[in-house]
Amino acid sequence: MSDQREDVLYRAEKAFQVYKKITPQKRAEFLYAIAEQIDLLGDALIQAAMEETCLPEPRLKNERGRTTNQLKSFAKLLEAGDWLQASIDTGDPERKPAPKPDLRKMLYPVGPVVVFGASNFPLAFSTAGGDTASALASGCTVVVKSHPAHPRTSNLVANAIRAALQQCNLHEDIFQEVTDTSIEAGQQLVKHPLTKAVAFTGSYQGGKALFDIANQREEPIPVFAEMGSINPVVVLPGIVRENKTLPPTLASSILLGAGQFCTNPGLLITIDTDGLAPFLHKLSAEIAQAAPGTMLHTGIAASYKHKKSEALKQKGVLRLVEGIAETTDRQGAPGLALVDAHNFIANTVLKEEVFGPYSLIVKCENEKQLLAVIESLKGQLTATIFGLPEELPDYQDVVDSLHARCGRLIFNGVPTGVEVTKAMHHGGPFPSSTDSRFTSVGTDAIYRFVRPVCYQDFPEDLLPLELKNKNELNILRCVNGTWTHNAIETFNLQQA
Amino acid sequence: MSDQREDVLYRAEKAFQVYKKITPQKRAEFLYAIAEQIDLLGDALIQAAMEETCLPEPRLKNERGRTTNQLKSFAKLLEAGDWLQASIDTGDPERKPAPKPDLRKMLYPVGPVVVFGASNFPLAFSTAGGDTASALASGCTVVVKSHPAHPRTSNLVANAIRAALQQCNLHEDIFQEVTDTSIEAGQQLVKHPLTKAVAFTGSYQGGKALFDIANQREEPIPVFAEMGSINPVVVLPGIVRENKTLPPTLASSILLGAGQFCTNPGLLITIDTDGLAPFLHKLSAEIAQAAPGTMLHTGIAASYKHKKSEALKQKGVLRLVEGIAETTDRQGAPGLALVDAHNFIANTVLKEEVFGPYSLIVKCENEKQLLAVIESLKGQLTATIFGLPEELPDYQDVVDSLHARCGRLIFNGVPTGVEVTKAMHHGGPFPSSTDSRFTSVGTDAIYRFVRPVCYQDFPEDLLPLELKNKNELNILRCVNGTWTHNAIETFNLQQA
Repeated sequence: MSDQREDVLYRAEKAFQVYKKITPQKRAEFLYAIAEQIDLLGDALIQAAMEETCLPEPRLKNERGRTTNQLKSFAKLLEAGDWLQASIDTGDPERKPAPKPDLRKMLYPVGPVVVFGASNFPLAFSTAGGDTASALASGCTVVVKSHPAHPRTSNLVANAIRAALQQCNLHEDIFQEVTDTSIEAGQQLVKHPLTKAVAFTGSYQGGKALFDIANQREEPIPVFAEMGSINPVVVLPGIVRENKTLPPTLASSILLGAGQFCTNPGLLITIDTDGLAPFLHKLSAEIAQAAPGTMLHTGIAASYKHKKSEALKQKGVLRLVEGIAETTDRQGAPGLALVDAHNFIANTVLKEEVFGPYSLIVKCENEKQLLAVIESLKGQLTATIFGLPEELPDYQDVVDSLHARCGRLIFNGVPTGVEVTKAMHHGGPFPSSTDSRFTSVGTDAIYRFVRPVCYQDFPEDLLPLELKNKNELNILRCVNGTWTHNAIETFNLQQA
Repeated sequence: MSDQREDVLYRAEKAFQVYKKITPQKRAEFLYAIAEQIDLLGDALIQAAMEETCLPEPRLKNERGRTTNQLKSFAKLLEAGDWLQASIDTGDPERKPAPKPDLRKMLYPVGPVVVFGASNFPLAFSTAGGDTASALASGCTVVVKSHPAHPRTSNLVANAIRAALQQCNLHEDIFQEVTDTSIEAGQQLVKHPLTKAVAFTGSYQGGKALFDIANQREEPIPVFAEMGSINPVVVLPGIVRENKTLPPTLASSILLGAGQFCTNPGLLITIDTDGLAPFLHKLSAEIAQAAPGTMLHTGIAASYKHKKSEALKQKGVLRLVEGIAETTDRQGAPGLALVDAHNFIANTVLKEEVFGPYSLIVKCENEKQLLAVIESLKGQLTATIFGLPEELPDYQDVVDSLHARCGRLIFNGVPTGVEVTKAMHHGGPFPSSTDSRFTSVGTDAIYRFVRPVCYQDFPEDLLPLELKNKNELNILRCVNGTWTHNAIETFNLQQA
């Protein structure tokens, strides 16, 4: 197997030498073609994904739409070209004491990228998901290691990508799928000297192991591991007392997709107040009446039950909801528990993610304790505040403290549901992800797979189109300190 | 000592909580004040630096100008505000099936940054150099570990920064200097849990050690280590045959500052051609007549002599220049040697940096061998091609191969001299730096110390000025996919 896997990256590198040179327009065409080919798979894809993941049909159809929209949004990004961060500082041969050189830089793809498919998004974060789409958009070639929980789904999508390569008459090794799902196979891919970056969505253990391997290589490479978090939700007293639609809203976010989202609200933080008892009663009732969710695979279900039971055993933790009993070993009964701030702060187990439909409520005596709870947390993908708009300004310290610990700060909305746009940031401080500077959702995800290269005093003829004076692609460039779509007038150059 | 050092970072973190909230205008004022205070040090600073580093007065005056200009260029960046990469995607409460959230993100400082002063730039890459300037500009607080080779210079500059803090009425711990110059002291600073990023300029051994420590922390942090390189210079046959001004140009770049630049041209690659013998003769004569340079300290001089003598001992290496003998143990005699492509490719020692006024010429038989030599190289800060403009298009493979291995690609200019502008990129693939995505020179260096945070559905009142609808700072923002300085019209929002 080792030889075959090595071969995969030699082929990916060879294809990269070709792929990095094709025009952005051609790359966009390829991304559109993948979306088209995925749509052509029709119901067969949804059926396979349903059978393998037990996720419901509407969710999977929605996820398919998200997947093809991601591909199209990167295609549009390439067509616009503004993303390249092209910068030009024109030279001045007459400057004293030394001539000023002409400097022009833009972003270039780094090389073959290894993508690890995620179990909880069999389409949107798997074979042709956001990682693959952004890497292919950047001009990198991609080797996907399929997730063992949905091999047929992965293979169907891989076929669609291969069909798109053929349709666009592109090198067949621009995209490759590795179906050996062993941990060792994945590690070998990360260790391979020709691999230049890694994208991963999954557990802390998995992501951190790959991160360590990548940093111990002779040439360390970046690993963009999105490792989940407990996504603290602060519920301020005013909205607790109001006690209107928030309990069912929170419950449905906790239960969504059997809680199998990296943005699942695993921690609710409140201040003890008059209305808290009825509020918690209402929330508990919502969770208690929910049927056990069927999880992605028995391994995840077993891990959920184990982690939940460990959490419930911790000092001072009070179980609020028993949950309807599971009838298969792939199910996970929803859970809700309560702990006071003192016990929460002192306990590291309670700060770990319980991946599934479970949430822990931390009851604080006052705002000072609320702050101490937040300050005891590590990095998070998201942090949320529910409150009345008029009470929010009184909690500026809470806002600041959450801001310092998360990648996305939400007001009066649930953390589940990650909008795919440019302004999204899905990546928080460690350990929620390995590199908080980059997002894995939205078009800015492309920046994970590029690096700047600067040309000094290069002849106009040999510059890439994007950096030539004329700017015939009409892209946004920073020219002598000003962002503009304008061409550089040779006349002005001579005057400068 | 350990307690005192811990204290330094607790104080840096405390100051960060204040500093991160002041306006960009106030931060700009602070940077201008540092430049002013450095100028006020007058000749005392230049004298101290001359005594400690043996660098000549004109060079140090020039470097002082570069240092204060760097500070001012970051101040201007803050005043303009366009650097923040502010992105706004407005929401749509009416969207079906789910409302579209309002998302707004921009860049925020990460926290206390530890800066290691470099020996070869006592001003521009030391206490108030590019690393400190960019970190302070980003809103991070800074702890500088002075370089042991120029403690008085460092201390004078540190005093200037402290005076600027006082002048601007800012928290005294926004900048701190650590004068314990032991290796352990530096390592403790990197290990401290409150340190959020590290900037380093120096040797591979030093930078890689810090990188490893940072990645083995419970919370790994980025280390931006600029570790030097051999900066290959390809000299094409046409310009060799021409044999005009190139030999003295190359010689003066090799000898500049006793060769103590990370961009020193340590490797010249040529193809055997009619004019090569006279070309090399001329180059050798230039190097041979140069007096031994006085180096930054005896340690660097000893290391230079050791590495040069090791390089000269390698198989097939022919010494071209003996060099005028050194008269003190702080001097380093210039050197030039020749090797064929075959011996160069097979030898790893010859690919290591010899920090000082020494260069190795690799003679190739043809273009194919030239390519093989380039392909045997690791990552480089710079790569250079000297040639006649009309011969360059015939060497596209050479251009591509150098491009893939460097951060800056130069045509017909020497690699020494790193222009401080936005379009500069000073940071190449590993091992020339630990993170090729970021530059340590020019205004884009600020991006090393920030991360995006996204606000979802936040009340307008509580958003930072930069993300409010009105855009009263008039900064460049990407609004619904279009880069613009315009405000967001509430009217349009309601229509959207």
